[in-house]
Amino acid sequence: MSSQARPWNFSAGPSVLPESVLRQAAAEMLDWHGSGMSVMEMSHRGKEFGQICSEAEADLRQLLNVPDDYAVLFMQGGAIAANALVPMNLLGRSDAADYVLSGSWSVKSEKEARRYGDIRVAASSGTVLESDGQQWQPWTWVPDAASWQVRPDAAYVHLCSNETIGGVEFSDWPDLAALGASDAVLTVDASSNILSRPMDVSRAGVIFAGAQKNAGPAGVTLVIVRRDLLGHAQAACPSAFDFANVAKEGSCFNTPPTYSIYIAGLVFKWLKEQGGLAEIEKRNIAKSALLYDYLAQTGFYRNPVHPNFRSRMNVPFTLHDAALDAEFLSGATARGLLQLKGHKSVGGMRASIYNAMPIEGVQALVDYMKEFERTHG
Amino acid sequence: MSSQARPWNFSAGPSVLPESVLRQAAAEMLDWHGSGMSVMEMSHRGKEFGQICSEAEADLRQLLNVPDDYAVLFMQGGAIAANALVPMNLLGRSDAADYVLSGSWSVKSEKEARRYGDIRVAASSGTVLESDGQQWQPWTWVPDAASWQVRPDAAYVHLCSNETIGGVEFSDWPDLAALGASDAVLTVDASSNILSRPMDVSRAGVIFAGAQKNAGPAGVTLVIVRRDLLGHAQAACPSAFDFANVAKEGSCFNTPPTYSIYIAGLVFKWLKEQGGLAEIEKRNIAKSALLYDYLAQTGFYRNPVHPNFRSRMNVPFTLHDAALDAEFLSGATARGLLQLKGHKSVGGMRASIYNAMPIEGVQALVDYMKEFERTHG
Repeated sequence: MSSQARPWNFSAGPSVLPESVLRQAAAEMLDWHGSGMSVMEMSHRGKEFGQICSEAEADLRQLLNVPDDYAVLFMQGGAIAANALVPMNLLGRSDAADYVLSGSWSVKSEKEARRYGDIRVAASSGTVLESDGQQWQPWTWVPDAASWQVRPDAAYVHLCSNETIGGVEFSDWPDLAALGASDAVLTVDASSNILSRPMDVSRAGVIFAGAQKNAGPAGVTLVIVRRDLLGHAQAACPSAFDFANVAKEGSCFNTPPTYSIYIAGLVFKWLKEQGGLAEIEKRNIAKSALLYDYLAQTGFYRNPVHPNFRSRMNVPFTLHDAALDAEFLSGATARGLLQLKGHKSVGGMRASIYNAMPIEGVQALVDYMKEFERTHG
Repeated sequence: MSSQARPWNFSAGPSVLPESVLRQAAAEMLDWHGSGMSVMEMSHRGKEFGQICSEAEADLRQLLNVPDDYAVLFMQGGAIAANALVPMNLLGRSDAADYVLSGSWSVKSEKEARRYGDIRVAASSGTVLESDGQQWQPWTWVPDAASWQVRPDAAYVHLCSNETIGGVEFSDWPDLAALGASDAVLTVDASSNILSRPMDVSRAGVIFAGAQKNAGPAGVTLVIVRRDLLGHAQAACPSAFDFANVAKEGSCFNTPPTYSIYIAGLVFKWLKEQGGLAEIEKRNIAKSALLYDYLAQTGFYRNPVHPNFRSRMNVPFTLHDAALDAEFLSGATARGLLQLKGHKSVGGMRASIYNAMPIEGVQALVDYMKEFERTHG
C-alpha cells in the first residue's frame, strides 16, 4: 500500500501515525530483532524491553533537550488522570495551586484539582459555565502572563499549552520568577502539542502529555518532572502513580504499557530522522499556514481564534451554514478525508494536523474545502 | 514462520500470546477492516473503535458468563494501581476491609490498602516480614475460608486468586454470606489466572486483572464490578479511576488504551474458537499435570507448594543445587526455552504456562529438565 493509498486521517486523537512506524511494527510483530518474541510478549524486566525503554527515554530526552535534573516517566491514564496525579504529587507540602484557563482542557484540570488543595484561577480567557464545564465558550486567545494573579505561596501554576478543542495554543511559556512567584513551578499539559515544536523544558516543573496525538498510541502518558519535586506526594496518592516511585524504578514500578512505549519509541526515532523538532516545527508552520491562510480569505468557513493564538495542531472551523455540515462530512469521507467532525461541545469541523500528517494531506483538505465552497457557496 | 519456529516463552508477564492473534494484528496494522486506519489511529469515539470495544466486552462477558448486573471496564494501571483503586472505590461508605494473605501479591494489596481505610488481615498462610514485604516467605497453601476472621462491618474481603510468584492458586472462592459477612463483597485480584478456568463471577463484588498474562498486552486492566457498588468512591479518588465514571462512559471516560483493548479482544475471540473456558481449563490441567507429575518424581528439582494449591499457571521450582542455575538457564535459552528465571524474591526457576502456551511447549521443557537431570544428576 503506497502512502497515497491511505486516506488522510484528521482525528484529534488517537490520531495518525507515521506510516513507516506502522510498517516496522507490523514487520516486527512476531519477532523483535531476532528475540523470537513480540514486544507484547516480553517481560518488562528483561534485557530486550530494557533496551526498548531506555532508548525511548534517551531519544525523547534528545528531541526535547531535557536537562539531566529532570526525570522522564512513562505512565498511564492520560491527561485526565494526570489532572489528579499532578496535584496529588505536588501538593504534599504547600496545598495552594493556581490555574490559567484557556479552554476546555485547562477548565477540566482546574476542576479536578479542587479536590486536592486550595485551587484558584490565576487568569482566564473565557467564561466557565459551572453548570456544565464541558459546554463550549469562545476561548479565542490565551491570557497574557502579565495578567496572571499568582499567589506567592502557590506550589505550582498550571497551563494547557494547546487546547485541542478550542484550537488555542501558547507560543511560549513565561518565566514564573519574573511574575514574582519564584517558589512556584509551572505545570504544563502538553498533550496535543508536545514534540510539534521545540519547548524550553527548564521553564516547567512538570510537563505531561497523553501520547495519542504526537507521540504514539493511547495508553502511555509522558511525564517530565524536575527531580527536586519528587518525594512529596499526598498520602492518598496511589503508589503506582507516585512520580518518585516511577522515577526510581525507571518506569517499571508496576508493569508499564510496554507495547505503547515501543511504538512511542519508534515515533521518536522517526522524528529524529526527519531532522528533529526544529525541522518538524517548520513543517507544522507551513501546514497550518496553508489552512489558516485559506480560512482568512473565505467567508464560507470561519475560525474564531485570534491570529496570535491559533493552534498549529488543531484547526476548528465552522461552515457559514451548519445545515451543510452533514454533506460536507460525507463528501470528505468519500474523498478519503477522515474524522473531520468537530468536538461535540463545539460543533462544526476540526482538522487535527499533527506531526504525522504531511502537507499533502492538508492540501487535499484545502482543495476539497475550496471545491465545496464553489459548489455550495 | 511456523509455530515450531518460535521459541517457547515462559515469561510470567507480559507473556506469550496466541500466534494467530499476533499474525492478525500484523496483517491489520495499516488498515483495520477497510477503514484505512490502524486501530492505533482511530478516535476512541468513532464507530470503528466503538465496535472493537463493544465486541471485546461482549466476548469477555460470554467467556466468563458475567451477569448483567455487573459492569465490565477496561482501565489502566494494572493490579498495582488497582490495589489503591479498589479501596478508593469501595471504602466510601464503610472504611473497613479484610485481606486474605497467600503470597507476595496479596501482601502488596493489603499494604497499599492501609492508606485508605481500616484494614485487617482476615487470614494468612505465611509470615510477612514488615521490613521487606517483597522478601519471599514459604507461601505454600491458601487459608481455608472456614478460618477467615471477617469483621461484620467489612465492606469487602480481598484475595488474590493466583499468586504469580509463589505459584499458589485458589481452586474456588467462598460464599461470604456463609461466613457471616453477608454485607461484605469479595474482591479478587485475578491477574494471573483470569480466563484460565471458569470462575463464578457472582461470588465477587469486584474482579480485577492486569491483562498481560492471559488476556492481552500490558496496558489494559480488566475490572468487573457489581453495579450496586458503583457511585461511592472516596473524595480523593481521581475521576479517571472512579469505576462509576468509567462504567457510565463505556470505558471511554478518558481515552482508553485502544490498541491494548483491540489485542485483548482478539485474544477473547481466540479463546472462543478454542472452545471457551471449559476446554481451556482441560488443557491447563493437562499442561500443569505434565510438569507437576515430573516434579513429583524427581529429587533433582523441587516445588514446595502443597498439592491442593499448586497453580496451573505459574510453576516455580528450584534445582537441588543452586550453583547449577546459570547453566540450566543458558542451556534452556539455547534450546528456545525462554524467560524461565524465577522471580528475584524467590530465586530458582519459574515456568509460566498461560493459556497461549501449548502442551508441546511444556513437553519441551520437561524433556529438557529430564536431560539436564541425566547429565548433571
